[in-house]
Amino acid sequence: MFDKEKHIHNKRIHAERLSLRIEQLAMIGKTDRNGVTRLPLTEEDDKAQQLVGEWMKQAGMKVRRDDFGNLIGRREGSDPDATAIMIGSHIDSVPNGGKFDGTVGVISGIEIVQAIHDANVSHKHPIEVIAFSDEEGARFSDGLFGSRGICGYLTDKELAVIDVEGISRKEAMEQFGLSTEKMANSVRNATDVRAYLEIHIEQGPYLQAMNQPVGLVTCIAGSYVLRITLRGEAGHAGTVPMPMRRDSMMGAAEAMVAIEKLCGHDAKLPTVGTVGTLEIFPGASNVIPSEVSFTLDIRDSDDERLHKLITDVEVVLADISLRRGLEYHIEQLLSESPVEPSHKLMEQLRSSADKHGMILPELISGAGHDAMIMASITEMAMLFVRCKDGISHNPKEWADAEDIAIGVSILCDTVLKLSNE
Amino acid sequence: MFDKEKHIHNKRIHAERLSLRIEQLAMIGKTDRNGVTRLPLTEEDDKAQQLVGEWMKQAGMKVRRDDFGNLIGRREGSDPDATAIMIGSHIDSVPNGGKFDGTVGVISGIEIVQAIHDANVSHKHPIEVIAFSDEEGARFSDGLFGSRGICGYLTDKELAVIDVEGISRKEAMEQFGLSTEKMANSVRNATDVRAYLEIHIEQGPYLQAMNQPVGLVTCIAGSYVLRITLRGEAGHAGTVPMPMRRDSMMGAAEAMVAIEKLCGHDAKLPTVGTVGTLEIFPGASNVIPSEVSFTLDIRDSDDERLHKLITDVEVVLADISLRRGLEYHIEQLLSESPVEPSHKLMEQLRSSADKHGMILPELISGAGHDAMIMASITEMAMLFVRCKDGISHNPKEWADAEDIAIGVSILCDTVLKLSNE
Repeated sequence: MFDKEKHIHNKRIHAERLSLRIEQLAMIGKTDRNGVTRLPLTEEDDKAQQLVGEWMKQAGMKVRRDDFGNLIGRREGSDPDATAIMIGSHIDSVPNGGKFDGTVGVISGIEIVQAIHDANVSHKHPIEVIAFSDEEGARFSDGLFGSRGICGYLTDKELAVIDVEGISRKEAMEQFGLSTEKMANSVRNATDVRAYLEIHIEQGPYLQAMNQPVGLVTCIAGSYVLRITLRGEAGHAGTVPMPMRRDSMMGAAEAMVAIEKLCGHDAKLPTVGTVGTLEIFPGASNVIPSEVSFTLDIRDSDDERLHKLITDVEVVLADISLRRGLEYHIEQLLSESPVEPSHKLMEQLRSSADKHGMILPELISGAGHDAMIMASITEMAMLFVRCKDGISHNPKEWADAEDIAIGVSILCDTVLKLSNE
Repeated sequence: MFDKEKHIHNKRIHAERLSLRIEQLAMIGKTDRNGVTRLPLTEEDDKAQQLVGEWMKQAGMKVRRDDFGNLIGRREGSDPDATAIMIGSHIDSVPNGGKFDGTVGVISGIEIVQAIHDANVSHKHPIEVIAFSDEEGARFSDGLFGSRGICGYLTDKELAVIDVEGISRKEAMEQFGLSTEKMANSVRNATDVRAYLEIHIEQGPYLQAMNQPVGLVTCIAGSYVLRITLRGEAGHAGTVPMPMRRDSMMGAAEAMVAIEKLCGHDAKLPTVGTVGTLEIFPGASNVIPSEVSFTLDIRDSDDERLHKLITDVEVVLADISLRRGLEYHIEQLLSESPVEPSHKLMEQLRSSADKHGMILPELISGAGHDAMIMASITEMAMLFVRCKDGISHNPKEWADAEDIAIGVSILCDTVLKLSNE
């Protein structure tokens, strides 16, 4: 039996083209330090969308920009009423970020459609490739803007958010040629999207450690961000004896050590905890700090374990505060429950991998992705591609084109299956 | 035998006047939050010096401002060639500080001269009361400016230091009517200063705990300020597993817990350690910090113990860095060795206290004082007055006028002894 997909792979998936396009895209917003700065709704973003739009057209897609600033290429299928198979990711970056984060998913999607186009394969469902606007949230607060947009989660408040130069998102969107009044027209739902698929670099070390090029995401971790504040009493650094201090910094340090233990006590669990920001008051070298406030970002694939962890953190804080004469306060800045991909799609991806003689290792995504949002309106699945030393958001970010091509081949098979169901 | 000093005390040391003057001085620079902000070389500083100068004149002193901005009152003795007995402290404050820090020492000095003046007691040595300029260092960097000035330690570099409004110390001094070219004329030395005596609030909790109004300072603690930097590797808060992190914040937290133990392991020792400032890079809630930098202020009465402590801190940092894959760096920002008061003056103060039926408890000063600097050119001794709950640099700072009066009486006896030797 002639295997259509294998034929496409052998003849049409070009690792060289993937690699070349990744490098070409990285020239837009290239930084002095060999990184990429491509913030959303900027000139660089526009240039990048122009280039990606050209590639979409070459793959036989009709290209448009929706009212959230998402770039969408669409190749119609044989059934004009069928729901779309969507492949996507993003092409915006963090400041001085890498070439692969997001771009791999968009370029891979185009590569799949290009292969289908070149092989002139028929498909019933339309296939769309989407480059979501502002996934990273590096210019305005939050992120995942484009995916939250098409899933109907945006509020007017988010349009008022300003960047460091005082430009509101609404102004930036209008300068980008978008009409914020028309945003509602760009909202999608299950009646027109059949499935969402995304390839992304792992941004973690597991695939490299397992010596595997591609893995299947079985969960996108839930994420909670807490702001923890400890209040004690300011005092002269020279005159208050150690046992009489109510030192908020030392209390915070003790809490962090305990929190690190709570998150890391079982190396087999995917729980992670990060203190990424800290403020100290009054902030003089010769004054015992009266108040310390820090953020704690905790993530896990298991929502119950996350809730238990938050409780355990509170127990730690209560104990430390009692012993040290401090007061503690916990504010929840963000809460995202874990998201599971569609079991059916995961099974399909496993089966597609099997055709390539591969058993996909299973991974949890510690980072959030547009796929997590898309899961709220349609079936979703994700593949991860091995990335060097797990480094991301960094000019050193690297993924081999051969690894990406393997992911593209697997996904191409799945897309063909889904688009003919 | 008629006891001249006892007579003066009974008749002439007025707790009410001390109290009234402390309140009057606190009106200059009074803040909304019931504190005092009297930064050096400001209009408030000038007003305060005017008021204090008036009190000095009432006590029969000749008043001048030296070229460092110190206010000096001098009552001549019978021997025009005799060296001066100097009593002093400062009248500048930290922002929103208390009424007692420094002011007690200056007002007490005037009270002693006033009592001598009122009783018309003769003395051979001249007696000076000095209000040092910029002890706190709250406007320009460093502090102890006036005492370092008259002891000959100032450099031109310090005149270039600017305040938050961009005014250099040199400009501020000139606006205050001082001539920075003439500063050398105001330097003092052992040939004209016989002794320096200071009363200061304890700014610590010991006298209150011992239920004693006044104590004898047997050491001004040495003080080292280190800037400790830990460098690891930035990473995505969601994707780097706990065991693979090189998290500089968690390393710093572990170091602080260990440092707190090193400083506080023996509650009988006066060792203290404070982390008062901390910076975290890059400083985003979802990024593992690559670098954390914090100050460590450590103090002890024993220089050898301080050096051992610094070594122990370095061992802790080396161990943590090795285990966590971090790099550490220690920069020494300040080093002041402990200073011992004159044994002869301490003996005299004990003997003066004995006359009042008191045995002076002995204390270490954790804070630095002008007395510490004055010890480099003359014999020095200090008394501490009980202060409520050890609170200082705070509007809640409080000392009872009765306690201060006891200190004044003891010091008055010692001044009379010294001024007739």
